Amino acid sequence: MSVSPAEVLGVSIVAGKDVIGSAGSVRARTAATGEDVEPTFGLLDLDQLDAAVAAAADAFATYRETSPGRRAAFLEAIAEEIEADRDQIVGRAVLESGLPEARLSGEVGRTTGQLRMFADVAAQGDHLGVRIDPALPDRTPAPRPDLRQRMIPLGPVAVFGASNFPLAFSTAGGDTASALAGGCPVVVKGHPAHPGTGELVARAVARAAARTRMPAGVFSFVLGAGNEFGRALVSDPRIRAVGFTGSRAGGQAIVEVAQRRREPIPVYAEMSSINPVVVLPGALDGDVDGLASAYVGSLTLGAGQFCTNPGLVFVPTGDTGDRFVTAAGRLVGEAIGQLMLTPEIAEAYARGVADLAATDDVRRVADGLAGDGPGRPAPVLNEVAASDVGRVEREVFGASSVVVRYDGVDQLASALAAIEGQLTATVQYAPSDVEEARRLLPVLEDRVGRILFNGWPTGVEVCHAMVHGGPYPATSDARTTSVGSLAIERFQRPVCYQDVPDELLPQAVRDDNPWALSRRIDGTLSLGERDR
Amino acid sequence: MSVSPAEVLGVSIVAGKDVIGSAGSVRARTAATGEDVEPTFGLLDLDQLDAAVAAAADAFATYRETSPGRRAAFLEAIAEEIEADRDQIVGRAVLESGLPEARLSGEVGRTTGQLRMFADVAAQGDHLGVRIDPALPDRTPAPRPDLRQRMIPLGPVAVFGASNFPLAFSTAGGDTASALAGGCPVVVKGHPAHPGTGELVARAVARAAARTRMPAGVFSFVLGAGNEFGRALVSDPRIRAVGFTGSRAGGQAIVEVAQRRREPIPVYAEMSSINPVVVLPGALDGDVDGLASAYVGSLTLGAGQFCTNPGLVFVPTGDTGDRFVTAAGRLVGEAIGQLMLTPEIAEAYARGVADLAATDDVRRVADGLAGDGPGRPAPVLNEVAASDVGRVEREVFGASSVVVRYDGVDQLASALAAIEGQLTATVQYAPSDVEEARRLLPVLEDRVGRILFNGWPTGVEVCHAMVHGGPYPATSDARTTSVGSLAIERFQRPVCYQDVPDELLPQAVRDDNPWALSRRIDGTLSLGERDR
Repeated sequence: MSVSPAEVLGVSIVAGKDVIGSAGSVRARTAATGEDVEPTFGLLDLDQLDAAVAAAADAFATYRETSPGRRAAFLEAIAEEIEADRDQIVGRAVLESGLPEARLSGEVGRTTGQLRMFADVAAQGDHLGVRIDPALPDRTPAPRPDLRQRMIPLGPVAVFGASNFPLAFSTAGGDTASALAGGCPVVVKGHPAHPGTGELVARAVARAAARTRMPAGVFSFVLGAGNEFGRALVSDPRIRAVGFTGSRAGGQAIVEVAQRRREPIPVYAEMSSINPVVVLPGALDGDVDGLASAYVGSLTLGAGQFCTNPGLVFVPTGDTGDRFVTAAGRLVGEAIGQLMLTPEIAEAYARGVADLAATDDVRRVADGLAGDGPGRPAPVLNEVAASDVGRVEREVFGASSVVVRYDGVDQLASALAAIEGQLTATVQYAPSDVEEARRLLPVLEDRVGRILFNGWPTGVEVCHAMVHGGPYPATSDARTTSVGSLAIERFQRPVCYQDVPDELLPQAVRDDNPWALSRRIDGTLSLGERDR
Repeated sequence: MSVSPAEVLGVSIVAGKDVIGSAGSVRARTAATGEDVEPTFGLLDLDQLDAAVAAAADAFATYRETSPGRRAAFLEAIAEEIEADRDQIVGRAVLESGLPEARLSGEVGRTTGQLRMFADVAAQGDHLGVRIDPALPDRTPAPRPDLRQRMIPLGPVAVFGASNFPLAFSTAGGDTASALAGGCPVVVKGHPAHPGTGELVARAVARAAARTRMPAGVFSFVLGAGNEFGRALVSDPRIRAVGFTGSRAGGQAIVEVAQRRREPIPVYAEMSSINPVVVLPGALDGDVDGLASAYVGSLTLGAGQFCTNPGLVFVPTGDTGDRFVTAAGRLVGEAIGQLMLTPEIAEAYARGVADLAATDDVRRVADGLAGDGPGRPAPVLNEVAASDVGRVEREVFGASSVVVRYDGVDQLASALAAIEGQLTATVQYAPSDVEEARRLLPVLEDRVGRILFNGWPTGVEVCHAMVHGGPYPATSDARTTSVGSLAIERFQRPVCYQDVPDELLPQAVRDDNPWALSRRIDGTLSLGERDR
């Protein structure tokens, strides 16, 4: 029997080979109805998982030293192979996630664009961070040895994708692309909410690896059951870092496992965020209805299932603030619930909304309309005084938001300074607000990874200056980002070579600079070929 | 009463002011005799500690945005003020640490050189990591906003210095210098083994802060009792990172406290290392006596009290290996114990040596001679087979080393792959060893932060390419270094500014580049003034 390369077989893909799991099976479900869809997926047992990790460790020996050009070719090939199966991937992802076709088609573009950006980053090689301090044999009182530094990849990386971006934050998403670009093999734990989408993407990655002659173990896609499987992956001594996007509880559990290892490893978990938006008084002097409309648009986009959903909106007390809240309430009241990613997510949303309703001093501003069919709960808008913001400071994943009424910039600054770490903060601003904004900026910098003015936080650009990160509990490690080219630096560490003979020096740190890299020589930066 | 600025008063220095602790007192002791020396030091209570942290948080508001030039001037001034009190500082450090005057005088130079290197780094500003992706208003399907990224300082940093470098790794050592260079106020917990040295250095820092008009809270030096005091410092929500050099138990305790905080913070703990040295067969074809002499010189330097002391030396089995061991044993047998830093350290050394003597299959090669007077224990050399290396894999801080006899490169590679993370690995090498060395390099890269050829690991150059770090338990975070200019990156994190109006943009990311920084624009690096 010959199968189309883009057919879902219900398998894991371990080092380029289809593997039927022998620890039971599961069905994928449609997001729309929760009904099972074909085929049955086999779940790997721990020995099968071990084989994937072993293959990754094995591949690391050669993959870590691949040249910038070869690594870029691999990433480019992944983008091409995904594009070759675009229709099948989008079709399957629509079925499994319930997200609209246009959105998922766009997400393919985001995913391949991200892979190509990391191909460029790998080719440029600036992440290698080469530093050379040449020997000073005549220095007194003691000569200086020859010292060279480069970043080396940490080793095999475990990736746990997200349900809300079945492509861009999953199998071949940002974590995978940046780890591969940095020289780390990847073992992706397939997400149970979109196993077929994962398998199709994984097959594309495996084809790209074969086509560009990468070691097969450079990538595996493993489907397994439950927490034990994930714990085994994170605990494996050959795994050297973890990328995770998901819930706070899930991220914290992984962090704990990683810290309890004999040799703890970095975990980059992007967990939860309610993304405060600050409406300054001057911003309400303009088009209040337009502002409210943009707010509700951001809130309800994709059923509110974005890490950057605006969950907390600070609005001044008083008449113009009231007008904004009324306008937003009217729009939320008219908004229709969209299909959520899974029945469990819809249920968690309902619980979160009920919790808010039962919270003292929280006023319901508006209830939207439930959508037609199950799993399409109504959007909700609540309101609270700034002095009570602590009561509502929790993520309700979905189209739920809370307006926080503040009385002057002092109260606003205090409330913002006290919130937990967040991915983003947004300021609605007019030039007349300049003093208030100047005062708030350092407060926001302390609490978030990205500050936006006069926009909305949903929509994260994939580029060099992006930060999709922030203080705990937005992420488990605020010193980095999971989106944008800086993300490659998560998976490496520096090594210094002292008086290492020429014949043994890694390519990156040789005097003749065969990879034409940017380098810091005696502390002064010189540009490589691709930076000139 | 007028006192010389370089007189030890027995105080803490909180935000520029002498503070007499009200939670009891301690005396400093001479390393040589363990006798008390004047004056009495008051220990701060937790309210007094709170005042120091509050002052640091307060200072952060302005210090974080000081220009590269001003910050460089501050660091340069610290170096000058330390030099102004050089004689008093060295004299006091000799008394408290027992280290020779020449060594401590050299350490002043290392400390001031390090401060000046970080002054240069701050002035250059490359650590700000500026990235700008300009807006693309005409892009389809969606325009790109204006996105700018810079690194911001984390906030106040707690520093726990080391006893073995009372200047270069203590009050104004590498952690303090790099944190200040990065824009973070510092609260140093004064080391109980050299409180007077600490006070003198702290006073120099405070003078420099006043002279360069820095906020007084930018630096405090706090003497307090025991673990509770240290825990309170690390637990304080206003402290945002920790630098530590010391024992494994001490470092692990701090990591645990930091991870249990409501908002966990990074801890950079440099803890323990036994620094494997690999003698390859070809290296024994040359001057075996010279090699043995260099080894024993490195081992006994400073009573063996270096983090980079060569504690584990892999030597081939067979005749030439035997000759090396015999030569090293003869030299250790003649070596005389030097004064250790504190009576407790000398006792811990004695326990470690006794443990080794009681360990099965460990052969004592040589005992040196105890020095004249207390706290001068004899150097010791042991030997073990490579198959038993796991039995001796623990740090004995002092002049103790174990020769590990290996039988061929396969056994050597396996033994090295299995060791814990280390700061350094050293290879004694001749060109005939090239194949063995090529095979070992990736193994060593995986286990250490610095690889040296034909040298000895003691002696850590302060420069741009240095890595003084390595996998756990050498440090608590392998992704960085505590020595060298890269260390500044430990105390910062990225923030992205999206469509932030010109009038509010931080200096570092403005279009007109007022600080003349190197920047990455649309992913391409362009050189700043100090890199050109």
